[in-house]
Amino acid sequence: MSPDPQPDGAAGLDALTLAVRAFAEERDWKQFHTPKNLAMALAAEVGELLAELQWLTPAESAAVMDDPDLGPRVRAEIGDVMIYLARLADVLRVDLVDAAQAKLTDSARRYPVDRARGTAAKAPG
Amino acid sequence: MSPDPQPDGAAGLDALTLAVRAFAEERDWKQFHTPKNLAMALAAEVGELLAELQWLTPAESAAVMDDPDLGPRVRAEIGDVMIYLARLADVLRVDLVDAAQAKLTDSARRYPVDRARGTAAKAPG
Amino acid sequence: MSPDPQPDGAAGLDALTLAVRAFAEERDWKQFHTPKNLAMALAAEVGELLAELQWLTPAESAAVMDDPDLGPRVRAEIGDVMIYLARLADVLRVDLVDAAQAKLTDSARRYPVDRARGTAAKAPG
Amino acid sequence: MSPDPQPDGAAGLDALTLAVRAFAEERDWKQFHTPKNLAMALAAEVGELLAELQWLTPAESAAVMDDPDLGPRVRAEIGDVMIYLARLADVLRVDLVDAAQAKLTDSARRYPVDRARGTAAKAPG
Repeated sequence: MSPDPQPDGAAGLDALTLAVRAFAEERDWKQFHTPKNLAMALAAEVGELLAELQWLTPAESAAVMDDPDLGPRVRAEIGDVMIYLARLADVLRVDLVDAAQAKLTDSARRYPVDRARGTAAKAPG
Repeated sequence: MSPDPQPDGAAGLDALTLAVRAFAEERDWKQFHTPKNLAMALAAEVGELLAELQWLTPAESAAVMDDPDLGPRVRAEIGDVMIYLARLADVLRVDLVDAAQAKLTDSARRYPVDRARGTAAKAPG
Repeated sequence: MSPDPQPDGAAGLDALTLAVRAFAEERDWKQFHTPKNLAMALAAEVGELLAELQWLTPAESAAVMDDPDLGPRVRAEIGDVMIYLARLADVLRVDLVDAAQAKLTDSARRYPVDRARGTAAKAPG
Repeated sequence: MSPDPQPDGAAGLDALTLAVRAFAEERDWKQFHTPKNLAMALAAEVGELLAELQWLTPAESAAVMDDPDLGPRVRAEIGDVMIYLARLADVLRVDLVDAAQAKLTDSARRYPVDRARGTAAKAPG
């Protein structure tokens, strides 16, 4: 497990977690990084993402990455959200992917394919 | 594509993305999964996470995973946030880890260690 | 301080603020009502509002109050948002309407009618 | 319809609603102001408010209005939140104060004073 960015999205998440941890420790920011504060920061970053998409139609939002101005901004906001989510999970010692897979298994039970098909305006979660 | 949790947090993120995609396609929910809608769902899930932490002191929040009621709920909310973030990134064709690493590199430039140390109430992002 | 709804939306906001304050004091919840905690609660309630609207098309959202299920739920979520916003402003001793009017005056300067007309996908704020 | 701030917080909310409506109509922004879009904008503004408070301790947040930098910024963010909440309620034809009073009455039933006193880490809503 090394903080080197890796070619596959794979080992990437572990490496990212370590890189964000190092970033915080080098700056002595661990003192600010309580779960409460990090959840607020995560929400604030999601707010910035919403701000990029709020006036777009759904169709415009689907093409947002093709826009030379908006595309990179949306990507950057998503990067910020991922950073804080990785940091929050690290501080809480939660494995992000395991937690998500467990929730997806729950959702598969609550929304069986035959009943949920097309009608249910509900997604996993 | 298999929803099996994988031993390393590694290939896990790619597998999760594929599992969430399959989940949505099996239920014919792709029609609902515009970036605009998914960003709203992501924000709603972050709201549920905030609700679990809002009345805790920072110290209580740091110990939240030890609480037999709250711990599993916080883990489940984090799982939901990860699910929607993975889905949003998949729909936008953004590599989550790459986007986060790029943003972290930017932040390292904006907050050099010697100036940011301990004082700056700012984290990456 | 009376929780009676008042005929005009008018004195209503002041009365609401007092009713929410009394509600909190009677339950000895002032200890939880720091601005930080209340801002989190406000965000969590906005998250619940987003959850009601996230899968709707913009057109469906425009008719949401006509839906016998969704309409009352949206109204209830908006009520919750107003409660926490009033409480937060009370705790901070900010006059909500004055703060909004001041911001609207700023926005009028930043978005002059002739330049902003129809094109600018930006609203006050 | 006059945008004049009024002496009492009273008629102020109605006047604010009319002022925000006029602001939007003059700029031909009604087309962007669907409930879905306005809920996103509301959430984005709450995100900006969270960003101002996220690294503060609860005690620091309680004194935030005394800070010459942070105080005016927090007030401006609260103003923005109020603007979008007023606009959303106007578009949905929801009376903000009535909706909040109705919800407060519900909460009084769900959290009776004798049981909720001091212990319940739950506020109205």
